[in-house]
Amino acid sequence: MSTPRSRLAPGTDADRAARVALTWLAEPGNRTVWSMVETHGAPETVERLMRGAIPDGALQASVLARATDFDPGRMAAETLHRADQLGARIVVPADDEWPRRVDSLAVLELDTPGLINVNVRPPLCIWVRGSWPLGPALERSVAVVGARAATGYGKQVTGDIAYGLAERGWTVVSGGAFGIDAAAHRAALAAGGLTVAVLACGVDRPYPAGNAAMFERIAETGLLISEWPPGAEPLRHRFLIRNRVIAAATTGTVVVEAAARSGAIQTMNRVLALRRPAMVVPGPVTSAMSVGCHELLRGNPGATLVTGLPQVLETVGRMGEYYAEAPRGPEHRRDALDEESALVLEAVPPKGAARPEELATRAGLALRTVLRRLSLLELSGLVERRDDGFALPRPASPSGDSPPGASPGGSPGASPGASSGREAAR
Amino acid sequence: MSTPRSRLAPGTDADRAARVALTWLAEPGNRTVWSMVETHGAPETVERLMRGAIPDGALQASVLARATDFDPGRMAAETLHRADQLGARIVVPADDEWPRRVDSLAVLELDTPGLINVNVRPPLCIWVRGSWPLGPALERSVAVVGARAATGYGKQVTGDIAYGLAERGWTVVSGGAFGIDAAAHRAALAAGGLTVAVLACGVDRPYPAGNAAMFERIAETGLLISEWPPGAEPLRHRFLIRNRVIAAATTGTVVVEAAARSGAIQTMNRVLALRRPAMVVPGPVTSAMSVGCHELLRGNPGATLVTGLPQVLETVGRMGEYYAEAPRGPEHRRDALDEESALVLEAVPPKGAARPEELATRAGLALRTVLRRLSLLELSGLVERRDDGFALPRPASPSGDSPPGASPGGSPGASPGASSGREAAR
Repeated sequence: MSTPRSRLAPGTDADRAARVALTWLAEPGNRTVWSMVETHGAPETVERLMRGAIPDGALQASVLARATDFDPGRMAAETLHRADQLGARIVVPADDEWPRRVDSLAVLELDTPGLINVNVRPPLCIWVRGSWPLGPALERSVAVVGARAATGYGKQVTGDIAYGLAERGWTVVSGGAFGIDAAAHRAALAAGGLTVAVLACGVDRPYPAGNAAMFERIAETGLLISEWPPGAEPLRHRFLIRNRVIAAATTGTVVVEAAARSGAIQTMNRVLALRRPAMVVPGPVTSAMSVGCHELLRGNPGATLVTGLPQVLETVGRMGEYYAEAPRGPEHRRDALDEESALVLEAVPPKGAARPEELATRAGLALRTVLRRLSLLELSGLVERRDDGFALPRPASPSGDSPPGASPGGSPGASPGASSGREAAR
Repeated sequence: MSTPRSRLAPGTDADRAARVALTWLAEPGNRTVWSMVETHGAPETVERLMRGAIPDGALQASVLARATDFDPGRMAAETLHRADQLGARIVVPADDEWPRRVDSLAVLELDTPGLINVNVRPPLCIWVRGSWPLGPALERSVAVVGARAATGYGKQVTGDIAYGLAERGWTVVSGGAFGIDAAAHRAALAAGGLTVAVLACGVDRPYPAGNAAMFERIAETGLLISEWPPGAEPLRHRFLIRNRVIAAATTGTVVVEAAARSGAIQTMNRVLALRRPAMVVPGPVTSAMSVGCHELLRGNPGATLVTGLPQVLETVGRMGEYYAEAPRGPEHRRDALDEESALVLEAVPPKGAARPEELATRAGLALRTVLRRLSLLELSGLVERRDDGFALPRPASPSGDSPPGASPGGSPGASPGASSGREAAR
């Protein structure tokens, strides 16, 4: 890490490195590992796993298989270095940009027995490619998921919903698969909105390769995220483990088309178990790609039939209001800044703009730290991105033609911070 | 009437004639008229209406307009004569074949205000064209309703459901409109099943004329029924009044396609208010013809999404079991016969067949009475229709190749009496 820290508390480099090592030693979401980290912290959990002090036979066996010739410290350092080289960062629970909603997985209990029920706990860390701070990006987000073998109907409906969500400042979240997933991302990109692909492999090798160009566009303007470290393979069971993050990280989830007993149905069962808005698009009863959707609607009183964007907005809008923080004025937000962000903000000149390199020098912080904090400050409307660098926002003009970012909370239907930041970024 | 009766109780000719007159004086289902008949009987209600003793201003005005130059006795006699000529009969609550389920309209209360809420009570009488006894025909029945401007998708799904229902011994019930209604009847006819068209005009002039050939086929093998006397016009508001009978007379109702705020939706609201199975087929959210269906599913926890025949059967099957009478053996059923039916049955020779004319002579009954009783006896499996007349059923053969009608209750999934009768009629 480029910002040296000394404490051995969560959020320190030791904590980060240990969490990275843990994702090599066990699959993300593992109940036992997560509980051990909660009790002992990540570094001691690595130590215990390495010496075989594991209160779980199955985990013990799998860790043993992976731990041969394994040096946790070296592995973590190598992984973090590799991530740094490809412009990826790691986000841990102690970070400001940690997406808080995933913590609700801490208490998730599923009826379904079997292996998949073992990996349901919150992520230990999330790898991110893209400049948006993760938490704020997911604050007002809707997952749009569904079948790989989607029909023209399904893709059309997905496109309409995702485009409309993106246009209205909602982040679109999906996997990276062909079919509904890709249709959702493409529509959000087309709308100039923010889209997040949650992968089941390293963010350096988004899968499937056929969507490579799309993944590059997402990395440029949105986020590619994964619980697995760079280099991790898209193993079959990882998609099911990944699905709980899609369900937990978003305000609500829409399934557009899904075959019976498909991955999308499994995601929806997580959404229902989390008591999040579970929205289901019906389709022709003659279509195999709608069978799963109709089963969900028949079997779950908690599932909501939605026929398009207005009903999706109505459903998540209520929840959005419920979850959204109360609007805060700029002074208030400035007061709530962490130390690093406050240093960066103080480094921004009162007039004109400054490039990140200049700000790093003035603030005495590493460039990567400055870039990350600038993203957050921009999202909060406290700084503004211009052609020649970052500047303080222009004061709101009384004629109402204030530039985006200068009047937080002014965009109807979007949360204050997010909307101003997003508009400024376009 | 061809069978003279002397008592002045319900079911007598005076009662029948009065009910006919009442359907000329007020629209069927009128709350006030129905309550007056309940309290005073039909003949006295006619008398009170004619002399203006009406506890309801709106009804008083409309009766006054209709009662000018109106002779109830003559009108009833003429109507009954006309019906007789075209082979239609009148069924009143005192008749064995009265469909008991419609009586649940006696307590129906609707949230919807306005004129339509005035005409929600049970029918005073039902005109029938076709040889099946009405009540048994409707005992195990499913209404399949929907849009006139149905899509190919809607007609296909309707056809699949109606054909399968008919094939399994369920009576299909619908209106007479183009689109879903016609698709339902045609599929039931194609399956050789029993189908009932509930009209909003006289059974002598089924509407629309474009379905005339279909109506003739229904009259031959199924039933054309109406609350309005022969000659009555298909006025616009009558379709909405008629819909409550479709909802109330059947085990459950399926809506396949329906535009927003359409007649089919109104029917489903009656079904829901009656707490009958209200089954809704979803469709593409891009189709205007599925908008009403999706609204029903979103707005009513009592509505059940069904994707095809198996789920329709599962839904009404439960109710069917609930409503179905316990299976009874032939002796038992013979004991329960009314006097006329017993006379007809005794007239059937122990060997060979007899034509209805012969049976009428032997039993000392009018031909029409004999024909009606024969239909009931056939349905119960107590007589068998053959090319040369009616005969006692052949005893069940131990090899299992017994002729249809000889082993009541042997058809899986159908109620004993109905199934044997229907098979015998093929």
